[in-house]
Amino acid sequence: MGKSYHIAVVGATGAVGFEFLRVLERRSFPAAGLRALSSARSAGRSVQFHNEPIPVEELTENSFAKIDIAFFSAGGDVSRRFAQRARDAGAIVIDNSSAFRMEPDVPLVIPEINGEDMKGHRGLVANPNCTTAIALMAIYPLHRAFGVRRAFASSYQAVSGSGARAIEELKKQTEAALQVRQSDGLVLWRDRQVTPQVFPHPIAFNVLPQVDAFLESGYTKEEMKLQNEGRKIMHLSDFRASVTCVRVPVYRAHSIAISAEFEKKVSVEQAREALAKAPGLELVDEPQKNRYPMPLNVAGKDNCEVGRVRLDCALENGLAFWVSGDQLLKGAALNAVQIAELL
Amino acid sequence: MGKSYHIAVVGATGAVGFEFLRVLERRSFPAAGLRALSSARSAGRSVQFHNEPIPVEELTENSFAKIDIAFFSAGGDVSRRFAQRARDAGAIVIDNSSAFRMEPDVPLVIPEINGEDMKGHRGLVANPNCTTAIALMAIYPLHRAFGVRRAFASSYQAVSGSGARAIEELKKQTEAALQVRQSDGLVLWRDRQVTPQVFPHPIAFNVLPQVDAFLESGYTKEEMKLQNEGRKIMHLSDFRASVTCVRVPVYRAHSIAISAEFEKKVSVEQAREALAKAPGLELVDEPQKNRYPMPLNVAGKDNCEVGRVRLDCALENGLAFWVSGDQLLKGAALNAVQIAELL
Repeated sequence: MGKSYHIAVVGATGAVGFEFLRVLERRSFPAAGLRALSSARSAGRSVQFHNEPIPVEELTENSFAKIDIAFFSAGGDVSRRFAQRARDAGAIVIDNSSAFRMEPDVPLVIPEINGEDMKGHRGLVANPNCTTAIALMAIYPLHRAFGVRRAFASSYQAVSGSGARAIEELKKQTEAALQVRQSDGLVLWRDRQVTPQVFPHPIAFNVLPQVDAFLESGYTKEEMKLQNEGRKIMHLSDFRASVTCVRVPVYRAHSIAISAEFEKKVSVEQAREALAKAPGLELVDEPQKNRYPMPLNVAGKDNCEVGRVRLDCALENGLAFWVSGDQLLKGAALNAVQIAELL
Repeated sequence: MGKSYHIAVVGATGAVGFEFLRVLERRSFPAAGLRALSSARSAGRSVQFHNEPIPVEELTENSFAKIDIAFFSAGGDVSRRFAQRARDAGAIVIDNSSAFRMEPDVPLVIPEINGEDMKGHRGLVANPNCTTAIALMAIYPLHRAFGVRRAFASSYQAVSGSGARAIEELKKQTEAALQVRQSDGLVLWRDRQVTPQVFPHPIAFNVLPQVDAFLESGYTKEEMKLQNEGRKIMHLSDFRASVTCVRVPVYRAHSIAISAEFEKKVSVEQAREALAKAPGLELVDEPQKNRYPMPLNVAGKDNCEVGRVRLDCALENGLAFWVSGDQLLKGAALNAVQIAELL
């Protein structure tokens, strides 16, 4: 029998927390025990793990006794407040928040890309941003083949990236919108009393060009992550990425349209080859059969999908392509568990 | 009393046809009479114009007697078959299809940009593609200020761009999807029997990276229109544009995320100034108040909106921005009626 580990999941009742439990089960992660932690509000509930109910406990400074691996997915504030406690108690922290990603002594890891950066970790490994992770799953194999310089990207992000309440908000707003009189496509439901709570504006039958808070530059924090985290993960300090992040009325799975410029001469054939053999990625690229990645097809799926690969008509040496991936899996829980497996 | 005109609307029962009638009414277009034309299938119905029922007649070769202006919006095949008949009968044709847009002797016109190209028309003026028109409403004022070289764009296109049946398809699929068991954002309705008829895949709670047919290059026809039509409309033969066109579950109004590169040094302040004073365009750009263009806000509105203006972080001399516009109005009926007003 191999070694098994005492695991804590911080944020166990959230959308990503739920996926952590499913991924650990599915991959038969050697868990000697599981502690489900949450805020006081959710404590007292229970979650299922290997068909057993696990009581959800309130997260406190003393929650990490005897824990070997602690998965954090309860936002940056919780990570900043409790990650050090977990490390002090001897646990290795795998953090899904943005709190420590850019700290020089914290590895930021996508196992298929820079697993070797785990070496010399100090009890804390960061999981990248979901949109960044999915985009890099396609950009990195092309970088290996051609040397990426810069990218222009627009995202189509599912509401579940904002958690379980956002899923409910889309559903409720959609139901309300369907009740409203439609006049030839002019849906007048903005006149109805629908008060958004999770998103700043209605998301049903709408798209919002805002994910996360705005920076002085006019970009949002989310939009700068592909460049900032991409540089660290690919070890490529002059990589540039101009991104527009957009929330769309999709429950699950993010998609990203990308134009990328390369150093070496590109060809679609070589690009497809590089993408087809990349781990964790599937090439779905048969336009003549209307086959390309879509959120509805990758939701609930470990692998990301890439397609629509073509020579970019506005770059000397560029490719345009389209990636979809389940942001709760490769963008969060799956990637974190893969990191734990590397340990 | 000014001159008034005998008008024909070809495709009067479609989504754009409906808007033609509303725009003609709203702008008090001097109509001496209106003839509503359609395929045999819809003939016999009636449409409302200035609160009077107008019988819908089947389009035939003899439909254009005494017509001064014929608006065509029934697809390229109908335009190719009947536009010449209308011209022969003495009508001026304003064609919303792609049939004649790129013909050298046919003006392709956005009145706010190249109204003077109308001069010397030979009885046929083409209306640009909807996504192209909305994108150019923002690109052109910036081109005037800084000289545009190339653009990278991703679209978020409403279903009504595919007509009245597409609106119904989104509604019906959404209702079906809401009935399906949801497991934490993993909507399993792809397992349900939902047969798409208008789009190649389900559109409810999904996004489709395909609008129109694929070309050999891997781009779709729709994706090449910004470059091809943009060159003609802006008189800019070396303009390049790499576009990904994506259908999203929005009823009405298209949005486009754009990164554009310019010849002259750009500044956000000058860009905002140029956009704010451009006709037909409104600057909605207060990110700190979460104000930016959204389809829900521009649906049913004549003006396009632009916002999210920022210095592009992956271009030496570039701007990133976001445009939304009602594709049935500025992208179709409104622009065509504006062309008629110029005549």
